[in-house]
Amino acid sequence: MQFDPLFDEFAERDWQRTTAGTLRFAVVGLGWWTLEEAVPAIHDADLCAVTTVVSGSKEKAQRIAAATDGVERGLTYDEFHDGAGAEGYDAVYVATPNAHHLPHAAAAADLGKAVLCEKPMEATVERAERLRDACEDAGVPLMIAYRMQTEPAVRRARDLLELGAIGEPVQVYGNNSQSVLSMIDDPDQWRLDPALSGYGTSMVDLGIYPINTTRFVLDSDPVSVSAQMASVHDAFGDVPDERSTATAVYEGGVHAAFTATQNGYADSELSITGTDGRLTLRPAFHMECELTLERDGVTVDAGAADVNEMTEEFDYFADRVLSGDEIYADGEHGLVDMQVLAAVHEAADTGETVALD
Amino acid sequence: MQFDPLFDEFAERDWQRTTAGTLRFAVVGLGWWTLEEAVPAIHDADLCAVTTVVSGSKEKAQRIAAATDGVERGLTYDEFHDGAGAEGYDAVYVATPNAHHLPHAAAAADLGKAVLCEKPMEATVERAERLRDACEDAGVPLMIAYRMQTEPAVRRARDLLELGAIGEPVQVYGNNSQSVLSMIDDPDQWRLDPALSGYGTSMVDLGIYPINTTRFVLDSDPVSVSAQMASVHDAFGDVPDERSTATAVYEGGVHAAFTATQNGYADSELSITGTDGRLTLRPAFHMECELTLERDGVTVDAGAADVNEMTEEFDYFADRVLSGDEIYADGEHGLVDMQVLAAVHEAADTGETVALD
Repeated sequence: MQFDPLFDEFAERDWQRTTAGTLRFAVVGLGWWTLEEAVPAIHDADLCAVTTVVSGSKEKAQRIAAATDGVERGLTYDEFHDGAGAEGYDAVYVATPNAHHLPHAAAAADLGKAVLCEKPMEATVERAERLRDACEDAGVPLMIAYRMQTEPAVRRARDLLELGAIGEPVQVYGNNSQSVLSMIDDPDQWRLDPALSGYGTSMVDLGIYPINTTRFVLDSDPVSVSAQMASVHDAFGDVPDERSTATAVYEGGVHAAFTATQNGYADSELSITGTDGRLTLRPAFHMECELTLERDGVTVDAGAADVNEMTEEFDYFADRVLSGDEIYADGEHGLVDMQVLAAVHEAADTGETVALD
Repeated sequence: MQFDPLFDEFAERDWQRTTAGTLRFAVVGLGWWTLEEAVPAIHDADLCAVTTVVSGSKEKAQRIAAATDGVERGLTYDEFHDGAGAEGYDAVYVATPNAHHLPHAAAAADLGKAVLCEKPMEATVERAERLRDACEDAGVPLMIAYRMQTEPAVRRARDLLELGAIGEPVQVYGNNSQSVLSMIDDPDQWRLDPALSGYGTSMVDLGIYPINTTRFVLDSDPVSVSAQMASVHDAFGDVPDERSTATAVYEGGVHAAFTATQNGYADSELSITGTDGRLTLRPAFHMECELTLERDGVTVDAGAADVNEMTEEFDYFADRVLSGDEIYADGEHGLVDMQVLAAVHEAADTGETVALD
């Protein structure tokens, strides 16, 4: 079997439809993720610019606007909802706590703007459905921000699977662990508050990566899940899942096991074992991604791309909006993950395996 | 933190109590495992010898006896049960299909012989209890053959855990996959026949390795399990678990995820993630075992021992029988795995999380 062609073009943007145009963004929610990752990534993107920043605080919005190249306006959430300066941007990137995605996305949709919404889509399935409906009703493009789907190593893993590099896929293991209190030293942070995060913390914030990336590489969705969860330490007293572990069976019969914790050594992995080999992405989900292929007892470092995953994601979204072509991770796609996350939590709550429609 | 002393004495037999004496074995069941792995391992052992071989076929028993150094007798199962040549051995190694462990172990116990019984202990919990009782009633030592417990890399992993090398243990992943039909090209083999194998095939034959090794390194037993299983291909039509995936919570709150398949690429792994690092055994369970320690973003190949795992196991058993000291993996220990395996199958059957007492 000959896999060389893949590796010659490992980081090629096989998804690209257009190289012309610029999509101007309002970024909503100015936390560390937006400022340290998203805004620099948009600056590096070919098809994107940031022209507007939106925050709960007028002072913060104006301060960030003044300090950021190309940004023309700093708005409050209320001003943004009222359409202030809406002529200055074409699309909205929503990166607030999960439970605030709906009002901001709906406001953007009402203004006729394309929406790039962080994952998970919202705090609950019902609110995610309303978010999807708001964008559909307004006729604006909606994408959920799964940066792994434009990570070259993930796309090459998918290509290798399709080429039969590991035979028939059999089982998957995914892990995403980090110490959220080492990253943000505040037990009152929103990721540990179910009113803002949704069903919990480790699965909705971390487990969603292997769950969704498995969907992407297998082109298949979960049909049943079982799970166990627990919170052990005081800081995690408001969420059920400082630690969580789940099984999932995907359409087609591939079995998966997932682990996630918000209070463990930072690590991430997705491995797919087939009848004839294994593909491993490790590290996988923490902004670097390396692909390994094992077959016939031989292990090959199959590559890692020197790209900014967020730049790839923003350019993909801009490419689809500018070209008018279909978005892969649309509202329906994001909603499936919301249903899976709800099912995982229901399985842990009830102690019963939960079937997904 | 200083871990060098561990590695200076990586393969040291930290369990050894005596270097004097020889335990003479009758080996019962002359399949490929016994002939290709167990008998050569006993020959290499310091404290063991094979003097008797026992098979269903008189012809096979006599042929193997004649061809094997040091073996004095080839017996049928009936002759063995009747005590023929019992003066010629001190201990019995039972390596028949799982559902035949009980009669052979009970016969050995009646003859006053120490018993080393392959894992899983029997086909069902009830039969495993009777096996334990038979040995207890006769007052003979019983060990279940968990070779990973005397694998140096596993013992060093346990030492490192106790030293806090990865902080507090948080979660575990274990996998054991192989293609049983590539190894034994016969869909009628006993591992695929529940009347001989027990509850199924992938968990009882393969999943038992990560389940038990996790018990050993954490010094903790599972308290609840969830699972999903499926058989996809015709050859696995009589067993429920060509593929199986389980979650387990261990005493103390460590979460574990296990995958196992009898129809996948051969691979094995046990990784333990703590608050401050990760220990990985990979390969783990296929007669070679390599330990990796990750901490502070640095990965250290922490060692692999050039030992025959079966020789270590036989010498450990002989050491305990000859010294009269306590056996770690005794009947009670093996029975816990039988209860866990039954619970994993019950969880998959009923779709409910099953608590263990």
